[in-house]
Amino acid sequence: MPQHSSPAAAGQDPFGWLDVRREERERAGLVRSLRPRQATSPLLDLASNDYLGLARHPEVTAAAAAAARRWGAGSTGSRLVTGTTALHAELEAELAAFCGFEAALVFSSGYAANLAAVTALSSRASLIVSDADNHASLIDGCRLSRACTLVAPHADPQAVDKLLDQPPGSYASALTVTDALFSVDGDAAPLRDLAAVCRERGAGLLIDDAHGLGVIGAGGRGAAHAAGLAGEPDVVATVTLSKSLGSQGGAVLGPARVIEHLINTARTFIFDTGLNPAAAGAALTALRLLRGEPQRADRVRTVARDLYQRLTAEKLTVVPPDAAVVSVRAPSPERALAWAARCRAAGLVVGCFRPPSVPDGISRLRLTARADLTDEQVAVAVRTIVDTA
Amino acid sequence: MPQHSSPAAAGQDPFGWLDVRREERERAGLVRSLRPRQATSPLLDLASNDYLGLARHPEVTAAAAAAARRWGAGSTGSRLVTGTTALHAELEAELAAFCGFEAALVFSSGYAANLAAVTALSSRASLIVSDADNHASLIDGCRLSRACTLVAPHADPQAVDKLLDQPPGSYASALTVTDALFSVDGDAAPLRDLAAVCRERGAGLLIDDAHGLGVIGAGGRGAAHAAGLAGEPDVVATVTLSKSLGSQGGAVLGPARVIEHLINTARTFIFDTGLNPAAAGAALTALRLLRGEPQRADRVRTVARDLYQRLTAEKLTVVPPDAAVVSVRAPSPERALAWAARCRAAGLVVGCFRPPSVPDGISRLRLTARADLTDEQVAVAVRTIVDTA
Repeated sequence: MPQHSSPAAAGQDPFGWLDVRREERERAGLVRSLRPRQATSPLLDLASNDYLGLARHPEVTAAAAAAARRWGAGSTGSRLVTGTTALHAELEAELAAFCGFEAALVFSSGYAANLAAVTALSSRASLIVSDADNHASLIDGCRLSRACTLVAPHADPQAVDKLLDQPPGSYASALTVTDALFSVDGDAAPLRDLAAVCRERGAGLLIDDAHGLGVIGAGGRGAAHAAGLAGEPDVVATVTLSKSLGSQGGAVLGPARVIEHLINTARTFIFDTGLNPAAAGAALTALRLLRGEPQRADRVRTVARDLYQRLTAEKLTVVPPDAAVVSVRAPSPERALAWAARCRAAGLVVGCFRPPSVPDGISRLRLTARADLTDEQVAVAVRTIVDTA
Repeated sequence: MPQHSSPAAAGQDPFGWLDVRREERERAGLVRSLRPRQATSPLLDLASNDYLGLARHPEVTAAAAAAARRWGAGSTGSRLVTGTTALHAELEAELAAFCGFEAALVFSSGYAANLAAVTALSSRASLIVSDADNHASLIDGCRLSRACTLVAPHADPQAVDKLLDQPPGSYASALTVTDALFSVDGDAAPLRDLAAVCRERGAGLLIDDAHGLGVIGAGGRGAAHAAGLAGEPDVVATVTLSKSLGSQGGAVLGPARVIEHLINTARTFIFDTGLNPAAAGAALTALRLLRGEPQRADRVRTVARDLYQRLTAEKLTVVPPDAAVVSVRAPSPERALAWAARCRAAGLVVGCFRPPSVPDGISRLRLTARADLTDEQVAVAVRTIVDTA
């Protein structure tokens, strides 16, 4: 990180250094800006994380509306004061049951859920082993925990095993932390092998299943469930309500004693306002739709594989998708940005991931499969991406 | 923090130490549990942060419902990908204008907004001076920033001045961080004096105005506005949408270059799903109601003063309220809990704040004034608190 140019001193502009950073971004071609979208759009969306196409499902939006009218626009307080409604409790019970865990706890975001899980399941005296490509929220959780955090090479259970191999008594507890599906490339973590390594070493396993819920496992029960790890006493998972469930929020799933511990100690639970009822109601209805229509999860994976096969056949470099995310390599940040802009001009919205928000410095177009994309839309998307390359 | 009892080792129960913590909580009488509430209740609520009584205002809940139907139940992605709607942009513009700042940026929670503001406005090379009683989210922001953080005695501008007085070049930048109204006791920070000290020392000032918006200042424009600091180039404020605005979410308010910097660098902005449309729509309508009915802000303060005066007249020890929160001392955590339970049994819901979620270890009943409480309800609340003491 470059040093700022303006030391703190009387009469100095305390935010002058922000201009230096801006100029650095501009020179590097890495300036980001917001592009507000309208409620309806003629563009084809392959950028959102609305994997099951439920964010605008009429039953889901009706549930959001009904919950706001019945329970209020906000939860009015922290979960421990006035912010827990019977609706939150119902969502937690059904989420836990669906994913195969003993208990669940809902947060205002997946980010908050991850901060809570990592910090509450470790202490200054703990060892955390964290995958190199983990999501920012897990990394921030490791930082906040003040545990000794060792970063393991990406998706490498043997490396995790070595890092967990510490002299007895070196640490009071150990925790391995990993995304189930990595958000940038969409590849899967070797969960079964990681769990075996953790058991051998007496470490807990925390799995961020944000991209697995609704996509992976029987009827979309998630990657932890698919790996046979749901409900295990040494496994905790986090999920988000804002991707497959089309709403907002996050949840921690795990043994009841873990959830009870979070209620009592997790700062992003205790000191945050509870999730707004509209989001809780929408997520609950989306979960019920998924339970009743498990083919939605199959369809996402079919669309992702179809995108991968067609783009690969066109000689593009694409990571084989393990879930909904399809990552297409771009030669540089500038060319990724220009490529995404040409796609948009041609009617297709794709994600453009580039430094500094990618762990490996590689720029890519990030496509997300959705269950509600038709085969024709997939064909149009592929044609657009290829024609604009 | 006590050491765990179970070192990481093969075959160990990796979460066994959670049981030790639970036993410690039980022995100390500090076990917390959730109490799901129903949609309607005969209880009188003096515990929520719904200061203006807008969370269940029919126009606000109708706006939440309409936004969910029009924009979807979720924002579908991070703000930089698909998660920014025209509704978010409208809310940001009106929030900034109302509070007197150049620009605003909305987050999924006030917690996320505070993490963003602190981390993005500092670096490893920075000095942060943080009030001892600051909210957990500001403290976590300081930890995540990896800046050198010095904790100043509570509400003490001279102490802040001394801590900012460092040899030239010691730090690349300096930032003072404070709640405007402290969440536990409801007392106000000496913002004008803090701003003067910061200017003298070339430091920025970050004000968490979560409890000021809607309550303090002309028409509820917040404590920063009331102190003449809104829109100043060296001042940044954060607000929440989940208290006076009856919804969910948070926002950072400040100079445009600060907001542009946050869009490009703040991890809880870049890596989080955008606020759900129902929450954004509800907050926008609540803001417009406040703008049109500024007497709501006056009424909250009147109710708070009334509570204070009546309780003090009954010989209870009460902190003079600077905004909506009225803090009543309790002799111990156990007796605070028992007192709150007796209030509830008598039909009154009050907050019960006790260790470890209070900075000073003092237990108290925490009452919150609301604009929609009648004088009769205030009298009933006071009578109940006194009778159960």
